[in-house]
Amino acid sequence: MKELFEPSCIAIIGAAREETKIGHIVLKNLIDSGFPGRLFPINPKSSEILGLKCFSSILEIPGPVDLAVICVPNDYVPDVVENCGRKGTKAVIIISAGFKEMGKEGAELERRVAEIRQRYDMRILGPNCLGVINTHAKMNATFTKNYPRSGPIAITSQSGAICSTLLDWSSEVKVGFSKFISVGNKVDIDEADLLEYLRDDPLTKVIGMYIEGEERGIDFMRQATLTSMSKPVIVLKSGRTSSGAKAASSHTGALTGSDKVYEAALSQSGTIRVKSLEEMFDLLLVFANLPPLKPGGVAIVTNAGGLGVLAADSCGDYGLNMVTFSSETIQKLKSNLPEEANLYNPVDVIGDADAARYDFAIRTVMDDPSVSMVLVLLAPTDLVDIASVANLLAGFAGKAIKPLVATFVGGVDAMKGVHILRQAGVPHYESPDRAVRALSAMMQYQKSLHSKMKTQTTTIQGDMAMVRALLNQVRAEGRLSLSESEGKAILKAYGIPVPFEGVARTEEEAVQLADKIGYPVVLKIESRDISHKTDVGGVVIGIASAEEVRKQFSLLLGRVSSMAPRARIEGASVQQMLSGREVIIGMVRDDSFGPVITFGLGGIFVEVMKDVAFHLAPITDGDIDDMIRSIKAYPILTGARGKRPADIAALKDAINRLAQIAQDFPEISELEINPVIVMDEGQGVNAVDALVTIKGGSK
Amino acid sequence: MKELFEPSCIAIIGAAREETKIGHIVLKNLIDSGFPGRLFPINPKSSEILGLKCFSSILEIPGPVDLAVICVPNDYVPDVVENCGRKGTKAVIIISAGFKEMGKEGAELERRVAEIRQRYDMRILGPNCLGVINTHAKMNATFTKNYPRSGPIAITSQSGAICSTLLDWSSEVKVGFSKFISVGNKVDIDEADLLEYLRDDPLTKVIGMYIEGEERGIDFMRQATLTSMSKPVIVLKSGRTSSGAKAASSHTGALTGSDKVYEAALSQSGTIRVKSLEEMFDLLLVFANLPPLKPGGVAIVTNAGGLGVLAADSCGDYGLNMVTFSSETIQKLKSNLPEEANLYNPVDVIGDADAARYDFAIRTVMDDPSVSMVLVLLAPTDLVDIASVANLLAGFAGKAIKPLVATFVGGVDAMKGVHILRQAGVPHYESPDRAVRALSAMMQYQKSLHSKMKTQTTTIQGDMAMVRALLNQVRAEGRLSLSESEGKAILKAYGIPVPFEGVARTEEEAVQLADKIGYPVVLKIESRDISHKTDVGGVVIGIASAEEVRKQFSLLLGRVSSMAPRARIEGASVQQMLSGREVIIGMVRDDSFGPVITFGLGGIFVEVMKDVAFHLAPITDGDIDDMIRSIKAYPILTGARGKRPADIAALKDAINRLAQIAQDFPEISELEINPVIVMDEGQGVNAVDALVTIKGGSK
Repeated sequence: MKELFEPSCIAIIGAAREETKIGHIVLKNLIDSGFPGRLFPINPKSSEILGLKCFSSILEIPGPVDLAVICVPNDYVPDVVENCGRKGTKAVIIISAGFKEMGKEGAELERRVAEIRQRYDMRILGPNCLGVINTHAKMNATFTKNYPRSGPIAITSQSGAICSTLLDWSSEVKVGFSKFISVGNKVDIDEADLLEYLRDDPLTKVIGMYIEGEERGIDFMRQATLTSMSKPVIVLKSGRTSSGAKAASSHTGALTGSDKVYEAALSQSGTIRVKSLEEMFDLLLVFANLPPLKPGGVAIVTNAGGLGVLAADSCGDYGLNMVTFSSETIQKLKSNLPEEANLYNPVDVIGDADAARYDFAIRTVMDDPSVSMVLVLLAPTDLVDIASVANLLAGFAGKAIKPLVATFVGGVDAMKGVHILRQAGVPHYESPDRAVRALSAMMQYQKSLHSKMKTQTTTIQGDMAMVRALLNQVRAEGRLSLSESEGKAILKAYGIPVPFEGVARTEEEAVQLADKIGYPVVLKIESRDISHKTDVGGVVIGIASAEEVRKQFSLLLGRVSSMAPRARIEGASVQQMLSGREVIIGMVRDDSFGPVITFGLGGIFVEVMKDVAFHLAPITDGDIDDMIRSIKAYPILTGARGKRPADIAALKDAINRLAQIAQDFPEISELEINPVIVMDEGQGVNAVDALVTIKGGSK
Repeated sequence: MKELFEPSCIAIIGAAREETKIGHIVLKNLIDSGFPGRLFPINPKSSEILGLKCFSSILEIPGPVDLAVICVPNDYVPDVVENCGRKGTKAVIIISAGFKEMGKEGAELERRVAEIRQRYDMRILGPNCLGVINTHAKMNATFTKNYPRSGPIAITSQSGAICSTLLDWSSEVKVGFSKFISVGNKVDIDEADLLEYLRDDPLTKVIGMYIEGEERGIDFMRQATLTSMSKPVIVLKSGRTSSGAKAASSHTGALTGSDKVYEAALSQSGTIRVKSLEEMFDLLLVFANLPPLKPGGVAIVTNAGGLGVLAADSCGDYGLNMVTFSSETIQKLKSNLPEEANLYNPVDVIGDADAARYDFAIRTVMDDPSVSMVLVLLAPTDLVDIASVANLLAGFAGKAIKPLVATFVGGVDAMKGVHILRQAGVPHYESPDRAVRALSAMMQYQKSLHSKMKTQTTTIQGDMAMVRALLNQVRAEGRLSLSESEGKAILKAYGIPVPFEGVARTEEEAVQLADKIGYPVVLKIESRDISHKTDVGGVVIGIASAEEVRKQFSLLLGRVSSMAPRARIEGASVQQMLSGREVIIGMVRDDSFGPVITFGLGGIFVEVMKDVAFHLAPITDGDIDDMIRSIKAYPILTGARGKRPADIAALKDAINRLAQIAQDFPEISELEINPVIVMDEGQGVNAVDALVTIKGGSK
């Protein structure tokens, strides 16, 4: 990756004389950005472009070439990449379009490029991308003229236009970038690789990413988790809603996948997910300009009560703590502010405040030990001198004892102050809610760093050999779904308790088993061909006597035979009738992100109320705790309405064991225990049913 | 009100020579705005101000005075208002501060002003306000210099600084106002009055309101409902969150009340509630500039796929329908757009699109009959000529067959286009989500107008005399809460079914009643001193035989006597044991907005899951329907998980009857039926318990 970002010489393959051609623009941009290394335009039809000697092939260049930027038509790309490989060039940017995004033929070209890459062990960015900017290396290897100033922000984007937009935005608000990477179709380098590189880049303080889809979900999560621990990673993942996902799939052919999985992946890995481009701008601005926040809360200083109320509302919305000032602070404010001023947070210095009064109020609240940041609001009243207040705030930038952001609301008049603030590097937001949202994101990032001391995972050792044999047997029989007793055998092998039960082939066997178990009992049809027993009338509960067992056994078999005439019926299982709170625990394997563990209360809670928690594996004891606590119906488990608390410790253990099964057997694509009966505290849990499906043999 | 907005002559009481005094600024603003009527400065110490003859009192002015603007110190205000009354002036604006917002003495001054006002039947705006602007009457009766252009927006604001902010914003985005009203402390004129006036103002097309609190909630709702039917009313109500409410109460001394009640009031009256100043700006802009939307959906045209995906995400978020184009539209797009373009919504005209290609795509989608509006997105790619696209869109303004809004994202480059769009009156938003939010608000307003054909209310005639007598009796006994049987008597008087039951004083009576009712039965303690029976062990359910009734009766009385030794116990009620789904219906009376009807499912649903619906009275059959459908647990009533549907018709009837009780007896402050047992379809409901409290005698 070093060759990609810090090459000492670059070949521009497809460089052109014509000013409108991309090959010309890229070369010119490299020259204009002041790239200090050597540049080699490659074009068999020219001898010289923009004053530089032109070569007909990369192979003709004397000495090594670190980086090749390819701008030739798509058909020529595989041969050109092959030449790069032969030359020993280790980094390639393919700007050319016309690959996967253009249907079958393009996808075939892309496949060929991937194959060549592997052969020569090169790293490739693109195809179908804008290129790379590294401001610290004075390298604009893109076809955009908008070269940004140097600064602490690194950007990766799956859309070239989003790159252009961010560049244009940055010139307005005066922030700078370290690296700018347009990833295109990601034939090789993807966001996981870039996170790994940017994590150790000392010039990058904050990373912004625009993502439409990730194929290597597990790698992405690993890199995002590690990177988030050393610098904030802000992610705009589009295709959140069904309309958005539909639009995204027709854009870069990205498989956007289920947004719930992305939501879990992004939040688990400690990244900050934003919902709009504007929120991305707002958060990049605050993270780029301010030092890390200390614990505490916000103090608000305003010249308009109404604005203060709106900001306070937003603090409520975004969970940003508004400080209650110490009595010393209040006394000091009182001594110098007019009688009509409000001394409590938000401090209202009222409409006729001048810069000196703002200065006094800001310094006073900054001295309060509970205050960790200050939000200054200004409404363009007729009595305020906007420029002088802006100059005051500009003086604080980088020098104040605590960080400060500003919101000057309004239009023409307010903008006079905003220009001063931007020039000085004071983060400015057009409305109080946006300022509060940005500060709250910083605060939450800071908090999440402190809570990163992850709890340990209790390691589970299951009987892998037994389960492996069972799954092989099922596969050998050509089945993809397991019977209930097979499923339960897997649970037992991993120490998840299942109720005492047996399978009866005859009425007589059923009665014997029931007598042994104790009444009441449950009868369930036993057939490897039936996965949803209740749908075929295959479950009878609360059977209280031997006589009734006899009667229900034959009724059950008769009913199921008529409702599912092709199913092979082995008999009926006789089970303990258990009482307790019903929960559902399960696992679904995502193609990109791996096992997704789910948990919710049974009955209507999952189906009707959609009250479910998700977590991607691996899962720690602390994660399981968070999952259980995060559902709305959690008080039902702790003993709402006078009931005894449920055995949550046993439930946690069962979830951990289920996650271990998912980790140990990648061929299991789905596993659901519905219900798990959670009994009162100290009495354990019982897995009453188990649904297991495995992947088809072709995969 | 006519005198307030369209006076032919105005007295400025407290007009001053000193340029920094408010009395000077107001007079100067009236002159500068070109007010065509006569102006009379009043100041006993001057003979002439700004070239106008000065009077020492309003009483000295020859001829009538329509409007007086008062800028004298607070102490003088009552006398000045008295003089206005004697003069026969019908409209007064009190700009002076120092009233309710400044504590007790100020509140007393305000009370005196209110008393004088009533005596002379004047209308007063303020005190503590910025004044009034009427651009069509060329009247700037405020102390803000920022006089706006004429236009279709009327603003009322409880904060002067929010007024200044909106004025400054309008000069940036080039929109105009009809009226601008700063309401101040609302000693007389409040938002309800202003809505009534603005509803019939032909120059006002959309109303924006900044509200901190409403004392006349019921009047506000009535006027807001009527006004919303003829023009959109956009409300920024602050103090939404607890931090915000705290800040608001220290600002104008407004009692912000429970936000849930405001939420219900604003949504029921058809107003559009916004959460931030920025959203207020955004919605005013679209409503001011565009004609009403026809039914249909949005078509998006973009030069960047990524932007299109983000806009599609926002359509999902805000429920804005994205049109699926007809095959004719697709064919036509295909014929003229480049191969790489995306022809489906969002239409991607790709990065090198010029104005002509945009023009073709926009006209083509506008011709699609399902499209009712177009959102045009532009990313500042290197290949696009931003100004020429902006000029193209400017040409559509006011002339296109369908309305159009635009989002040019970015910064410096994008702004070049934005200025052109604003000048032409094309609503422009900085990011796609804001454009979608604004369009969605318009669409929803249009839809709500069509659904305004409210269903009728089924009129309930209860036995008012009986209930009146009962409540008088309770009050005579000095009680504020009713016993269960008293509460049920009220329900019965209004036709809400209660289970068959009787009160037993002895074991023997209990057995006799139980035999008559049929087993199983429920025993409940009967005491006017106990309102939460279960807290004192006062309920026994599922009693299956005479023998058990006998035993439980004495156990019950013994237990309650020991747990509530001071309670007077009349015996125990014996009730039918009912089975069905438990719901809670209730009413709490808000001081400002009147009865709030609540509904939710019993058990954990209200307490743990907070799954409750609210509605302010009056309530129509359609409203009740909406309430019942709006809870998340609704499928439980319709028969989720194989159960029979509940008797929803009978439940609706019971809610309607409860609402009628609330309307008929304003002295009832709270009424809760918990639970109502809703039996299977056709079998009715039964109110199992009733908790009624009345207001203290002092009120």
